[in-house]
Amino acid sequence: MANSDKNISSAVIKRLPRYFRYLGALKAKNITRISSKELSEQMMVTASQIRQDLNNFGGFGQQGYGYNVDNLYTEIGKILGLDKRNDMIIVGAGNLGQALANYQSFNEDYGYKVMALFDVNPKLIGISVRGVKVLDTDELENFIKTHGIKIAALTIPKDQAPAIAKKMAEWGIKGFWNFAPIDLHLPDNVTVENVHLAESLMTLTYNVHNREESENE
Amino acid sequence: MANSDKNISSAVIKRLPRYFRYLGALKAKNITRISSKELSEQMMVTASQIRQDLNNFGGFGQQGYGYNVDNLYTEIGKILGLDKRNDMIIVGAGNLGQALANYQSFNEDYGYKVMALFDVNPKLIGISVRGVKVLDTDELENFIKTHGIKIAALTIPKDQAPAIAKKMAEWGIKGFWNFAPIDLHLPDNVTVENVHLAESLMTLTYNVHNREESENE
Repeated sequence: MANSDKNISSAVIKRLPRYFRYLGALKAKNITRISSKELSEQMMVTASQIRQDLNNFGGFGQQGYGYNVDNLYTEIGKILGLDKRNDMIIVGAGNLGQALANYQSFNEDYGYKVMALFDVNPKLIGISVRGVKVLDTDELENFIKTHGIKIAALTIPKDQAPAIAKKMAEWGIKGFWNFAPIDLHLPDNVTVENVHLAESLMTLTYNVHNREESENE
Repeated sequence: MANSDKNISSAVIKRLPRYFRYLGALKAKNITRISSKELSEQMMVTASQIRQDLNNFGGFGQQGYGYNVDNLYTEIGKILGLDKRNDMIIVGAGNLGQALANYQSFNEDYGYKVMALFDVNPKLIGISVRGVKVLDTDELENFIKTHGIKIAALTIPKDQAPAIAKKMAEWGIKGFWNFAPIDLHLPDNVTVENVHLAESLMTLTYNVHNREESENE
């Protein structure tokens, strides 16, 4: 594993939000410091993994003292970019798009702000979800460019997702939070984070049936 | 990697739904057979990984012929347990719970059937979402036992999730599709598939900011 900021493995990156979540929970309980051992017991990972992961970012622990919860929480937040303004849009104002717009866990904390939803359905255009307007998809280009939007959730049917994502990337979107059940092929400077709901449900289903069979033997 | 059905690595299991999705798309285009090379190009994984993955289940390819799309689709569906009835419930009938109940991609195909939603909110109890009733959480135990429900989506606040999940596992739930931003600690015979939305958005945010910094150097 590299020590440079530029080459942190994606596995470590994927674990950071979980550290952030646990530290947030400790903060909420007014716990001010924690040893890597205690943290590892709560998170059910090894203490050495915690130390290794956090060393990627220069480490934040002090021998014999452990981690300063507040500090570590703030620093990981900065690493994740949560100290910046994270304006985003949601393309697809159906049930899932509206649910995301309503999802308070990330909306209000961490600098995320849903600036607009977009849809092609005339019945949805003009309505508000938590005070955020649903705009006509025709306005996407102008909106992205005017507001310098970098992050977009895609909650549209899979047949429409690849073409619109390609255009949105040209207009300036750097990160897609993709809920459409299709893989997007976009330029290298664009990040895609897939949430394939049906696939995670299928994995669950497999495990449910498979454990049942093992038990019945 | 083991060859026995019982010891397939979770990485392989996680990839199966993606195979299933691609094969479904091929089927929809009336493509009847595909070589592992072609499939690998479309899925952007190596042909050898595809062969290795599918060999876990006895392999389905024929040298010089490739894979029979229809067959492979059906067989993977069976492996995933999609040929069985997969009755499920959704606990938490807020925006996200309702969005899942409305989510057609898995509702109607693959044998999934949302049998009921549950909530504590009197304003939600009694309403229908796509014809599925929202019931009082007090009825959970009886409903799970009467209908032999094994799969439950959890779309309730994180503070409530651990206690209710523990009870639901006692009543017979074997698989939790957990959307609450908290880790559930449940008996070994219970599977949890987490969809931590805020965490995937944070990973995306990290990548967006990090690539920007690299570009600006």
